[in-house]
Amino acid sequence: MGAMTNSDLDDLRERLRAFVAERDWGQFHSPKNLAMALAGESGELLEVFQWLTEEQSRHLDPKARAAAADEIADVLLYLVRLADQLGLDPAAEARRKMLDNERKYPVEKARGLAKKYTEL
Amino acid sequence: MGAMTNSDLDDLRERLRAFVAERDWGQFHSPKNLAMALAGESGELLEVFQWLTEEQSRHLDPKARAAAADEIADVLLYLVRLADQLGLDPAAEARRKMLDNERKYPVEKARGLAKKYTEL
Amino acid sequence: MGAMTNSDLDDLRERLRAFVAERDWGQFHSPKNLAMALAGESGELLEVFQWLTEEQSRHLDPKARAAAADEIADVLLYLVRLADQLGLDPAAEARRKMLDNERKYPVEKARGLAKKYTEL
Amino acid sequence: MGAMTNSDLDDLRERLRAFVAERDWGQFHSPKNLAMALAGESGELLEVFQWLTEEQSRHLDPKARAAAADEIADVLLYLVRLADQLGLDPAAEARRKMLDNERKYPVEKARGLAKKYTEL
Repeated sequence: MGAMTNSDLDDLRERLRAFVAERDWGQFHSPKNLAMALAGESGELLEVFQWLTEEQSRHLDPKARAAAADEIADVLLYLVRLADQLGLDPAAEARRKMLDNERKYPVEKARGLAKKYTEL
Repeated sequence: MGAMTNSDLDDLRERLRAFVAERDWGQFHSPKNLAMALAGESGELLEVFQWLTEEQSRHLDPKARAAAADEIADVLLYLVRLADQLGLDPAAEARRKMLDNERKYPVEKARGLAKKYTEL
Repeated sequence: MGAMTNSDLDDLRERLRAFVAERDWGQFHSPKNLAMALAGESGELLEVFQWLTEEQSRHLDPKARAAAADEIADVLLYLVRLADQLGLDPAAEARRKMLDNERKYPVEKARGLAKKYTEL
Repeated sequence: MGAMTNSDLDDLRERLRAFVAERDWGQFHSPKNLAMALAGESGELLEVFQWLTEEQSRHLDPKARAAAADEIADVLLYLVRLADQLGLDPAAEARRKMLDNERKYPVEKARGLAKKYTEL
């Protein structure tokens, strides 16, 4: 199936569907549970960085980088699976959100500022 | 740039690079900060589901579904940006992790069980 | 000092101060880092519950209950430490917040409804 | 009820029981849901700090400090409520965990190092 598509996310979605079906795990994959699993993995991602300075986080040693890669993979897999269960196309939603952000954070007002758009 | 690639995630990565550069936000986008932002959005995603039953989460009303779509988009955008800052290809990492999972959760042992592989 | 107080949280605060001072860990305990550590532990707490039904979560087996106890302890320790670093009294803040909640969720409007106060 | 106890956490637990009973919210307060709510609030706590440097997080302006106080209160309230639903005493669990940590991180090995005990 993946061969018919040119999108990484569509390919992951199809692989996950097969993986889950073979193991009869659909019963556990309610959107509620998948949102929890995604948030759990994002907590593990935090643990990679929590005692590092920002500067250190820009230059991870190989072990920390591998740990970050693992957690990024886990978050992405649950995100793709959650979106699939909700019938959402995550890349399309992200492109839509970027257009929103371009409107909410006009270049001339937002440049160099880490403020929420409601405070610009 | 997006036109040169056939991957949704590559396209998002390039859009984000331009968005950040125009606003001079690279200074805020340390991997540490991006991991926090990703986890913050995953917390907002939880809030969509926290008082719903699993069954309700499988049949969201339009307002909750739109909220979930927004948070999924935010998580994906920060994930793509974080991976870019670490020089990682998130889809490749996810495919690698799926192969790991296929080994760790063999079909005959994992079928119908929501257990960690260390307990199978 | 703990002996001079009748509050569990004051006692934990003092124990944590001594623990951190002995190990020279104050340098790592910026509020930013402590907030990350707290959120990381709350992610581990999620992992105890993510594949359980709500009903199962009300009747944990001893192993899951012990895991939940561990994560609750970790969250509380980081919370006490974070509040200390910010000069906040967490119990006083919680009591203040309860008064807010009593106003925002009047009994007659909120009874039996899991809605945000802005939607009541 | 609070007057009969000398513990902040016991007092909060009793107030929460009354608050929930009056609103008939016990039906929503499964441990699973409370763990999600706690993690959601810890995500909001992250958002207070995510674009600040560590140094800035040590010197919050009044608005950010008030936001942090609010989220700390929310996390503590859900933590107390979750522990109550599981029949756990969170302060006792935290004291037990501190003893574990004192063993796992001996002063002479852990001083000045932000490493996990398994790596000391």
